[in-house]
Amino acid sequence: MAPLNNEKNQLFLGLFIHSIKLGELQYLRDAAVCVDKSGKIVAVESEYDQKKAEEKLYPTLGWSASDVAVTKAKDGQFFFPGFIDTHIHAPQYPNAGIFGKSTLLDWLNTYTFPMEASLSSLPKARRVYTRCVRQTLAHGTTTAVYYATIHVPSTNLLADLCLSMGQRAFVGRVCMDHIGPDYYLDESPAQSLAATRETIDHIRGIDASFALVSPILTPRFAPACSREAMTALGKLHRETGIPIQTHISENKDEIELVRDTFPEAASYADVYDAHGLLGAHTILAHAIHLSDAEADLVASRGSKVSHCPTSNSALTSGEARVRWLLEKGIAVGLGTDVSGGYSPSMLLAARHAALVSNHLAMPLGKWADVPAAERERAKLSVEEVLHLATRGSAEVVGLSDKIGGFEVGMEWDAQLIGLGLVDETPGEDDMTDHGNVDIFGWEGWENRVAKWVYNGDDRNVKKVWVRGRLVHERA
Amino acid sequence: MAPLNNEKNQLFLGLFIHSIKLGELQYLRDAAVCVDKSGKIVAVESEYDQKKAEEKLYPTLGWSASDVAVTKAKDGQFFFPGFIDTHIHAPQYPNAGIFGKSTLLDWLNTYTFPMEASLSSLPKARRVYTRCVRQTLAHGTTTAVYYATIHVPSTNLLADLCLSMGQRAFVGRVCMDHIGPDYYLDESPAQSLAATRETIDHIRGIDASFALVSPILTPRFAPACSREAMTALGKLHRETGIPIQTHISENKDEIELVRDTFPEAASYADVYDAHGLLGAHTILAHAIHLSDAEADLVASRGSKVSHCPTSNSALTSGEARVRWLLEKGIAVGLGTDVSGGYSPSMLLAARHAALVSNHLAMPLGKWADVPAAERERAKLSVEEVLHLATRGSAEVVGLSDKIGGFEVGMEWDAQLIGLGLVDETPGEDDMTDHGNVDIFGWEGWENRVAKWVYNGDDRNVKKVWVRGRLVHERA
Repeated sequence: MAPLNNEKNQLFLGLFIHSIKLGELQYLRDAAVCVDKSGKIVAVESEYDQKKAEEKLYPTLGWSASDVAVTKAKDGQFFFPGFIDTHIHAPQYPNAGIFGKSTLLDWLNTYTFPMEASLSSLPKARRVYTRCVRQTLAHGTTTAVYYATIHVPSTNLLADLCLSMGQRAFVGRVCMDHIGPDYYLDESPAQSLAATRETIDHIRGIDASFALVSPILTPRFAPACSREAMTALGKLHRETGIPIQTHISENKDEIELVRDTFPEAASYADVYDAHGLLGAHTILAHAIHLSDAEADLVASRGSKVSHCPTSNSALTSGEARVRWLLEKGIAVGLGTDVSGGYSPSMLLAARHAALVSNHLAMPLGKWADVPAAERERAKLSVEEVLHLATRGSAEVVGLSDKIGGFEVGMEWDAQLIGLGLVDETPGEDDMTDHGNVDIFGWEGWENRVAKWVYNGDDRNVKKVWVRGRLVHERA
Repeated sequence: MAPLNNEKNQLFLGLFIHSIKLGELQYLRDAAVCVDKSGKIVAVESEYDQKKAEEKLYPTLGWSASDVAVTKAKDGQFFFPGFIDTHIHAPQYPNAGIFGKSTLLDWLNTYTFPMEASLSSLPKARRVYTRCVRQTLAHGTTTAVYYATIHVPSTNLLADLCLSMGQRAFVGRVCMDHIGPDYYLDESPAQSLAATRETIDHIRGIDASFALVSPILTPRFAPACSREAMTALGKLHRETGIPIQTHISENKDEIELVRDTFPEAASYADVYDAHGLLGAHTILAHAIHLSDAEADLVASRGSKVSHCPTSNSALTSGEARVRWLLEKGIAVGLGTDVSGGYSPSMLLAARHAALVSNHLAMPLGKWADVPAAERERAKLSVEEVLHLATRGSAEVVGLSDKIGGFEVGMEWDAQLIGLGLVDETPGEDDMTDHGNVDIFGWEGWENRVAKWVYNGDDRNVKKVWVRGRLVHERA
């Protein structure tokens, strides 16, 4: 069962907005984007209507009009690249919003491990994973990097669901054979590795070239993994090229636990490095409290960071210094980190990336003695956080040549966004239900995008495509 | 035109949740609440169904069943007190989400004053205010404390709209006759006062007893007001008892501006105190950077604080120390502060009150040297922020005997909240659109409320009543 080609070639017409570099959105007005049956973008042209596309583009592409499906953005709508969630725990989805006043280590024991352990039940896993994939798609997430659980059958089911529902995904069976609860732990390093291989084989069986769904090696976080297991995973990575995801430096107590558990290591980052897990295909979630030396090590290895601001605020973890990471030369993308983060929305993660950067810049903060101009540099703009959610995340997952923007040669992973227009002459009983982005008509597109980032939700996501296939549509 | 009585008495049945003290929600299960035609709660009983209410309560109340309208919460729904937004700028509603990287003073000049000035146009004011009142009602805000603009006619229109749409409101014509843009400033202290009186007279004309809509004296903030204007407003307050709203200590540059403008004053709070504006009926928005002495002064005067966390994060203003204010003995409620805050949702303000309190508690923060236990005390729980949004805000607006809870003698300002149940056996194409609160069925009510606080939106607000009148309903 491999992802099928689409029945027709496709022409998309209207306004296209995407990030072309950190802080700069490009607005392609009255544009035409052609997508072939394999889902690949084969033409991007501005100031084109359907007639012009038929006359000028179809002949070059060898297309005939009868073999082309046309989708036009309505007035007030725009196409935007699909969001790429670089860190989300699918089995924790039912716990979204449930974390009390906990912080990482007690949160794991109180809420997370019991929920994950219960996903050994396949019917429960089907219910939870179906809803999780459905909801992330509905929020415009076209690619998700999933942690599953330690259970092979339900992890494989998650991969099946992503494939059938059409979401591009990295699916990781969780490896944890060291520190963890008795009721939820791999039996041994060998069993941990064997189970990991089982899921890899399963995914190879359903999507041989990993065109849509790929396995990802998933040592939970350093303290949860034995040295043997990490060494074996590092070896497997070198043999197969399969990417790696894990956590780093999320919480002060966690960092102390790492120090106590691996007294031989120079730092948290060094634990991964020593076991061959810190490479150019490694996604590190959080990276809040990295030292300068650790950040330099991460940068030198080419490892990537998944910034999860919603989670970091919710679990009182800290404020990651995104500008600082970027200036170290580290690629940074965004993650929802459900259910440390309470929402599957990547638009919310982008919004929170801006808000948390504001908290970093507050004069009462840790930078109280830093001059205002220097503090202000920490702040991330709307344009910057949208870059992180698309291009930045694409780089983090190693697909920057394929997704995250509208360019010839890339694949059509996109969302159609619609914003609501407030009635010109309202009656007192007027109640248009178009979500919470209220456009009055005088706003320029820069301000409309800002309104979307701050008040948008799944109601604004009208259609979603992955590799050219329509995977979500809102009536 | 005074608020009319309802045609029938009303019986509400089902689960009622309200705060009974800071941090403690009460769950009234299978309860009955009786509301008379004037909108007053006349009975609250647990473990009652309709039959029992008819048999035991109606005779006591002198009700006959034919004269009672019955509303039952469905399974999974609950009644909650309406939210009380203690600080919202209605004319800034169209700017929600538009603030870039600005902070208070440049935000005022770049975005806010031009928008407010444009509301001199009555058709524009009608469109903006109708949408603002409609949207706040749709988000469960039954009482709003509004800043309008300096314009009398459009301020009066806002009062008219609140009355006709049924929202309990305090409506303030903005006084600013000192520092401000040439194009948007009162002409003189005398004109500022006369215009204020005009709006008071108008509101007295449409709602003589201020049963639903009340005027509120609104010196914008100290630097915008001359000493003469503030003195006159203080005098007017003493003569009429009409409450006061203003801003305090939101931003470091603002505080410097106050210091430069009022060199004779000991502090920002002292400016208001010296002009007779710091009393038990004064609402102070923000109060982020108060000194100990200022907080003590505010407490001794009995003035109240409107905490606006969404705004404070958006404009990089700071992290208000709510626990500290409460321990000073100051009443604290919540405000959306649209459009410093980007959303009209008080549920979001409550959520952000919790998140911002987490930022206060972060070990990298200004309290880096403070022991963990002390830092953790800053954190506000779900139960605490819901208290602030209802009971706390009721105290701030001086109506704690009337609204904010379900008690005999209070008025029926309430919302019916519905949470969505995820299908038991999902199909791949299942897409129930019930908003973003996904209930799986195994969650207890404490966790359901947490899910609502973190992922709820206007889709969960099924019905809204003010003084017993149904003012919003979602199909």
